[in-house]
Amino acid sequence: MVLRNSRLTTKTSKLFDSFNASINFDQELAEDDILGSIAHCKMLVKCQLISASDGQKIVKGLKQIQKEFHQGKLNFTEQLEDVHMNIEDQLLKKIGAVAGKLHTARSRNDQVALDTRLYLRRQLVTTVQNLLGLTDTLANLAKSVGDQMIPGYTHLQRAQPVLLSHYLLAYAWKFSRDIERLLSSWDRLNRCPLGAGALAGSGLAIDRNYTAKLLNFSAPTANSMDSVSDRDHLLEYLSNAAISFTHLSGLSEEFILWASQEFAFVDLPDEFCQTSSMMPQKKNPDLLELIRGKSGRINGNLINLLTILKGLSQTYFKDLQEDKEPLFDSVKTWNQSLILISELLKKTKFNTAKISHEVYADYSNATDLADYLTSKGVSFREAHQIVGQLVQVAIKQKKYLLQIALSDYQKFCPSFTQDLYAYIDPRNIINRRRVAGSTGPLSVKVQLKDLTMQLKIQKKQLAKYSKLINTKL
Amino acid sequence: MVLRNSRLTTKTSKLFDSFNASINFDQELAEDDILGSIAHCKMLVKCQLISASDGQKIVKGLKQIQKEFHQGKLNFTEQLEDVHMNIEDQLLKKIGAVAGKLHTARSRNDQVALDTRLYLRRQLVTTVQNLLGLTDTLANLAKSVGDQMIPGYTHLQRAQPVLLSHYLLAYAWKFSRDIERLLSSWDRLNRCPLGAGALAGSGLAIDRNYTAKLLNFSAPTANSMDSVSDRDHLLEYLSNAAISFTHLSGLSEEFILWASQEFAFVDLPDEFCQTSSMMPQKKNPDLLELIRGKSGRINGNLINLLTILKGLSQTYFKDLQEDKEPLFDSVKTWNQSLILISELLKKTKFNTAKISHEVYADYSNATDLADYLTSKGVSFREAHQIVGQLVQVAIKQKKYLLQIALSDYQKFCPSFTQDLYAYIDPRNIINRRRVAGSTGPLSVKVQLKDLTMQLKIQKKQLAKYSKLINTKL
Amino acid sequence: MVLRNSRLTTKTSKLFDSFNASINFDQELAEDDILGSIAHCKMLVKCQLISASDGQKIVKGLKQIQKEFHQGKLNFTEQLEDVHMNIEDQLLKKIGAVAGKLHTARSRNDQVALDTRLYLRRQLVTTVQNLLGLTDTLANLAKSVGDQMIPGYTHLQRAQPVLLSHYLLAYAWKFSRDIERLLSSWDRLNRCPLGAGALAGSGLAIDRNYTAKLLNFSAPTANSMDSVSDRDHLLEYLSNAAISFTHLSGLSEEFILWASQEFAFVDLPDEFCQTSSMMPQKKNPDLLELIRGKSGRINGNLINLLTILKGLSQTYFKDLQEDKEPLFDSVKTWNQSLILISELLKKTKFNTAKISHEVYADYSNATDLADYLTSKGVSFREAHQIVGQLVQVAIKQKKYLLQIALSDYQKFCPSFTQDLYAYIDPRNIINRRRVAGSTGPLSVKVQLKDLTMQLKIQKKQLAKYSKLINTKL
Amino acid sequence: MVLRNSRLTTKTSKLFDSFNASINFDQELAEDDILGSIAHCKMLVKCQLISASDGQKIVKGLKQIQKEFHQGKLNFTEQLEDVHMNIEDQLLKKIGAVAGKLHTARSRNDQVALDTRLYLRRQLVTTVQNLLGLTDTLANLAKSVGDQMIPGYTHLQRAQPVLLSHYLLAYAWKFSRDIERLLSSWDRLNRCPLGAGALAGSGLAIDRNYTAKLLNFSAPTANSMDSVSDRDHLLEYLSNAAISFTHLSGLSEEFILWASQEFAFVDLPDEFCQTSSMMPQKKNPDLLELIRGKSGRINGNLINLLTILKGLSQTYFKDLQEDKEPLFDSVKTWNQSLILISELLKKTKFNTAKISHEVYADYSNATDLADYLTSKGVSFREAHQIVGQLVQVAIKQKKYLLQIALSDYQKFCPSFTQDLYAYIDPRNIINRRRVAGSTGPLSVKVQLKDLTMQLKIQKKQLAKYSKLINTKL
Repeated sequence: MVLRNSRLTTKTSKLFDSFNASINFDQELAEDDILGSIAHCKMLVKCQLISASDGQKIVKGLKQIQKEFHQGKLNFTEQLEDVHMNIEDQLLKKIGAVAGKLHTARSRNDQVALDTRLYLRRQLVTTVQNLLGLTDTLANLAKSVGDQMIPGYTHLQRAQPVLLSHYLLAYAWKFSRDIERLLSSWDRLNRCPLGAGALAGSGLAIDRNYTAKLLNFSAPTANSMDSVSDRDHLLEYLSNAAISFTHLSGLSEEFILWASQEFAFVDLPDEFCQTSSMMPQKKNPDLLELIRGKSGRINGNLINLLTILKGLSQTYFKDLQEDKEPLFDSVKTWNQSLILISELLKKTKFNTAKISHEVYADYSNATDLADYLTSKGVSFREAHQIVGQLVQVAIKQKKYLLQIALSDYQKFCPSFTQDLYAYIDPRNIINRRRVAGSTGPLSVKVQLKDLTMQLKIQKKQLAKYSKLINTKL
Repeated sequence: MVLRNSRLTTKTSKLFDSFNASINFDQELAEDDILGSIAHCKMLVKCQLISASDGQKIVKGLKQIQKEFHQGKLNFTEQLEDVHMNIEDQLLKKIGAVAGKLHTARSRNDQVALDTRLYLRRQLVTTVQNLLGLTDTLANLAKSVGDQMIPGYTHLQRAQPVLLSHYLLAYAWKFSRDIERLLSSWDRLNRCPLGAGALAGSGLAIDRNYTAKLLNFSAPTANSMDSVSDRDHLLEYLSNAAISFTHLSGLSEEFILWASQEFAFVDLPDEFCQTSSMMPQKKNPDLLELIRGKSGRINGNLINLLTILKGLSQTYFKDLQEDKEPLFDSVKTWNQSLILISELLKKTKFNTAKISHEVYADYSNATDLADYLTSKGVSFREAHQIVGQLVQVAIKQKKYLLQIALSDYQKFCPSFTQDLYAYIDPRNIINRRRVAGSTGPLSVKVQLKDLTMQLKIQKKQLAKYSKLINTKL
Repeated sequence: MVLRNSRLTTKTSKLFDSFNASINFDQELAEDDILGSIAHCKMLVKCQLISASDGQKIVKGLKQIQKEFHQGKLNFTEQLEDVHMNIEDQLLKKIGAVAGKLHTARSRNDQVALDTRLYLRRQLVTTVQNLLGLTDTLANLAKSVGDQMIPGYTHLQRAQPVLLSHYLLAYAWKFSRDIERLLSSWDRLNRCPLGAGALAGSGLAIDRNYTAKLLNFSAPTANSMDSVSDRDHLLEYLSNAAISFTHLSGLSEEFILWASQEFAFVDLPDEFCQTSSMMPQKKNPDLLELIRGKSGRINGNLINLLTILKGLSQTYFKDLQEDKEPLFDSVKTWNQSLILISELLKKTKFNTAKISHEVYADYSNATDLADYLTSKGVSFREAHQIVGQLVQVAIKQKKYLLQIALSDYQKFCPSFTQDLYAYIDPRNIINRRRVAGSTGPLSVKVQLKDLTMQLKIQKKQLAKYSKLINTKL
Repeated sequence: MVLRNSRLTTKTSKLFDSFNASINFDQELAEDDILGSIAHCKMLVKCQLISASDGQKIVKGLKQIQKEFHQGKLNFTEQLEDVHMNIEDQLLKKIGAVAGKLHTARSRNDQVALDTRLYLRRQLVTTVQNLLGLTDTLANLAKSVGDQMIPGYTHLQRAQPVLLSHYLLAYAWKFSRDIERLLSSWDRLNRCPLGAGALAGSGLAIDRNYTAKLLNFSAPTANSMDSVSDRDHLLEYLSNAAISFTHLSGLSEEFILWASQEFAFVDLPDEFCQTSSMMPQKKNPDLLELIRGKSGRINGNLINLLTILKGLSQTYFKDLQEDKEPLFDSVKTWNQSLILISELLKKTKFNTAKISHEVYADYSNATDLADYLTSKGVSFREAHQIVGQLVQVAIKQKKYLLQIALSDYQKFCPSFTQDLYAYIDPRNIINRRRVAGSTGPLSVKVQLKDLTMQLKIQKKQLAKYSKLINTKL
């Protein structure tokens, strides 16, 4: 059943009812819908559009529904199409005809716009919390691994030795930017659309600033037509989720590689792994694979809403009802993935013996060998050339650079002397990288301090927003 | 709870269980899973890998589960993670330890690959049925509107008058291609992966041809590693859905425009429309808007799976579990949209008076006026030029071309004579278009016959496939 | 030809050279590459890593190349693969072997990261300028159309009368948010990655703060591995473009509809329209269609980079070379579309007579008729019901609500009196909407002031950024 | 400059000209445009719509242009907007006013529809050739590696030993399906739209069957409106490309992993690798990374066109001009990637010593150890349990299963006897997999024969199509 009136004669078809109904997913908005209604009611009373006693009845009824909802006692039915009609119907049953006055100066267009913003404010705070949780985990891991060295890669080829802490912090900074992006979207989100009506605003003397204030919005939205059609804040969240999943899927891939027998850099916690129904030896990194795979739905959800909005003129269209499922799905997926990967990381063990061995078992000190030559006056291009040849020979001889005799070195270039061995020891290579943002231990120490400082600022900002969404009415 | 064994020590985390479980969506595969298991069991008996009496017990147990499923009595639990484990557990409860033998020579990797193919075969048949239903509706509509003329558009500007039947048939051909595409994907879908094992095939003497035959597959799949990683058939279906939604969203847009007050070409059936909670005069084309909007999720689902599969090496990864939700969602959305738009079209009324009036109320006979001139020996480019000027003057004088006096015509070109008026009458313009595929009534008659013939062939093909999926074991 | 050295023996294949070369597109970065090199060189001198006289030679050479580039005299060749090698080669030809010293303490990984940020800073400023241009145009249009009324739509059905200025401002606010989003991404973009080296930072005593300062960055990036893999700022720009194209394609659709014969609300400027090769009467809104269609490539470019980045571990991969074409294409498409649609809007004529007529030719005053009844004490739901019936009768009688006799009104409800006619006159309907953000003339006046204020702040912010990118070295 | 006539008064703006012009990309269609024009002209003569001598002049002119084009002498200018106008202008210059007659009974809408189909027919044949090339390469590789064993993976964890030939053939079948998909799309592509006019068909007595026959199409398209709006065949190609890139990116990932120091299974040919500007030891798999990364643009191109087509009603819109760039880009990218990866594979060396060693250096024989137990009468679930415990103990003792003493085995289960060692030797494990599609050498032999047979059929089909596109007129 859908909202009908005398304008339309026939009942809707059953299949259409189910196609059309949104209650199966928009019940996510229930608590936001109730909260928004309470604020709207209080404003109506304040503006003397309904009487104080009617207002009290309505608010009381709504709070009862709120309570039942939190107790899991609220039943929604598809017959009542959406969350708004369901709650309106509950209210009618509880307080009778006076319930109808709640709809004064309000349309479902501005009502759903409000609910979605309230919902998204809540979720944005939660997501930032989870991002902070993951970033903290990475920072703590970085601290805990001390000066552990690890091979650094480009093109999945050994490139240069780095500190494991530096490696982990590379991800921390990525998630820290995800936090920044969410925080900086707040101002566009935190505007109150209520009072925009169906599209033209209200002819009644309502007070939009009052409602906005009750709900801790910074201000009412500026244009009623824009208010009911605007889905920018949803797209921002969906984009931010997609960007974050480039980080999450990369981090997952990293640890999937590291957990392979070939790398064997980490031992993943059993509780986030699975074995096989057939192969008893298997320990599969299921959680990490799922998170990597879920970048699919995150990208899909973004394209979903972008496709919906393409070519829609003003103002509201039923197409826009389709905005909620991709949003809810990305919210849930992002939040769960952040929590779970953070837990996994906390319990992951680094096979430090294996990693330490590997740092000495490659040619990733070649760059510094070339640097060594340039420090002896050889031009960079020439040094690069010489070292390239050296590596080729070394590979054939199955030796690493630290294993080649000085006399052999000197055949390639007389500038080589004994000090080369110290120069290209991975530990020294890393220690020499003292410049800001480099992998040297001193730089990493500063880096960690900077990150901690930045996280502190972000937490402070989040605390401010958390307070705003804790609206008690 | 997830499948563990002595290889892994710790229990999985609760949140991970829920993140990891697929039973909430993969129960869609229940009847396919049961069917596949029955076939597998019969093969095991035939190959003497289990005894006949064990086989009978297992089949009997599975058929009982099948029956309970069809009666809606089967309960699935998230603790048992996925549909395979849930059904296995049911079987265990029903027939005891012998249930375990069903898993002989089978892995979840080939089991889920089989289930998905069985499911998709069913759904492909249903979708083709629904596409045929819609195409039939369009063909019937085309027949029923007779020689009704309507403005034809390019760039949403009046271009040339056409027959309404021709207009509708343009869409019929689009959906007919959608049918072709689905039918032509059957051969790649209809191969049986069972027996591929986890990835390497089976070391037991199973008979893959027998299972394939029991389930009416054309043959077993060719390579076990490919069998467990292949998701091509899902991508084909998702692509075909996306292509079809370019047609469905276009058709929806067309009728949304036609239902606007500005066009007023159609009166949509009340039962697929809604009114407004605030504006009592409204009759909104909600169904059409929803279908147009649902192109978002259809594109999103395609990108979802394409993203998942990007850069995955061989063979199975847990990422692949994410393939089901986009598939199921597109299946449901496509099928429902086809049924509903077909119903809507059947009950839509064309405002023939308004449409007929509009055919005479524009400059879309200008092309034929130019043609007229060329038939009098004026070169095409010159004629085009003259008529362009004429239209400009006519617009200024607020006259259509049939309303301009002959003397005025002759000021622009002496080749104009009285017969021009008959020549550029929309009815004659249309009648002159006799060439194959044109809008003239004779061409459209032939076109309708061709379409009917093609639909007949497609229905015959579908009947063949329908028989194949009606596997009784 | 690609950079080889003694490490690799064989020449690359020709087809691979062309597949691999990026010079065809990355020459967009030429001026950024030169600028970055000059800054790098000055830093090397300052840190005494190269001599002052070598530094002078290099800078002089680079400035010469810069000059030739601005004069269009610089030739790039595919043999030299990318823009960096091309410019390096030019420098070598100009100043000889000393050119090689420029590459001290620099890798192509951090070099290209720098170039892209310099490029994107420039383009972000340009795009904000163009967005401001369009928003100004809309604000000016809104001012110029005065109190012109126009039908307002939901579901493409007439909903309520609104002011044309309000309608136009709805879009202005959308583009104003686009500006906000770009401006708020600046802080993440404006960090200097130079000095990150290939991935590990530099072992030489460079001064990253100095380079950052020379190029007006706020600071060096924090982590060298993150610096060479980070593509967030590109994704942010691409997402912001996609969000903006939901606005641009909607606005285009709006005016395509309005330019149709059926709406006939606007007369588009001939210079942005085209006629047909065949139909001489046609005037097609080609520009608007192109902009609407270009939302395709904008979405495609976003998905392109999101797909590339999915599942990439640390740090640099050649996959990342593919980041540039989607970026450059979205930059160009977005900027051109903004400029062109702004020009089109400036020269579009509103058919005010037709629009004014239409405001009185529908049932969009029905909401206010229901409001009228509630103001007379009828409950909202009942009033909604009554007016719904009234509209149905009126449609059958082919009358609008202002044309129905009072006696007829009273048959439906005795509360109707003569004052209803004034109440539901569109002009009064609009005037009554005085609440913040509503369509009433007073609200719109305030709205325009608020918008102007916001644009002023944004322009000020932009001026600051413009100064930062005008780096003269 | 764009096509104007007296209908439009003002010149178009310069920026709009460039925004609007398509000649920069649609010159790809030049030879198709010429060919289509020759056929159209011959039809016009045959139907006596132009004289034989005019026809001869036009054809002669067109052939001259064709020749110049093949010699690279044809210059296109943006002033003439698109390829059709450019060639028309060339013809005018060559043969004078008679050139104008070529446009009889033709619109740019059906002309460009024809050109795109001619182009796509050519490209489809080329792509199938390249896919066949790659599949042949994989089949040949599979033959050449004999009975070489290699670890098989699920979840990137060692799962079961397989034959390298089987591994490679898994990919061969994937590409073979890509071929099937392209071949099966031919029937929908190979219809001739010429004669559809702008949208309504032609009023002149043209012969569409004749043109179709001249150009080796199977028939004319069925409905003129559908003909000018249909972009299905482009979407099919773009989807097929996207599906194929899930295979190409997976294969690339596989070999990138295999080329890492950690796997070291292959040695990639130097000519498709690159070194680093900074790190002299590097040999990076650039080609494979590029191909993997190019799945981004392939997905982007698909979403591009899907977005464009969303919500477009009938018939032609300028939005559709945007269909070409994504198509051309996917055509080029797909073809080049196929050729290059095939070349790379041909020259890749397998490090068979390392691979052979690795097959014995893991627990991937555990499944067969469990099978062994079941063959001794232990139930599968129990066997799975026992082996799981065994693996855990073995890992702690740093032994593989073949290294554990029988006495130790028997502590876990008395059913173990000496024959277990032969049973779980990888060679025997593989040899036991004799079932159709399994990894055993006998199965693989059959598999190779089946593949060869299928390729033969596909090549025959392709030869048929190749003949059809070799239209000499």
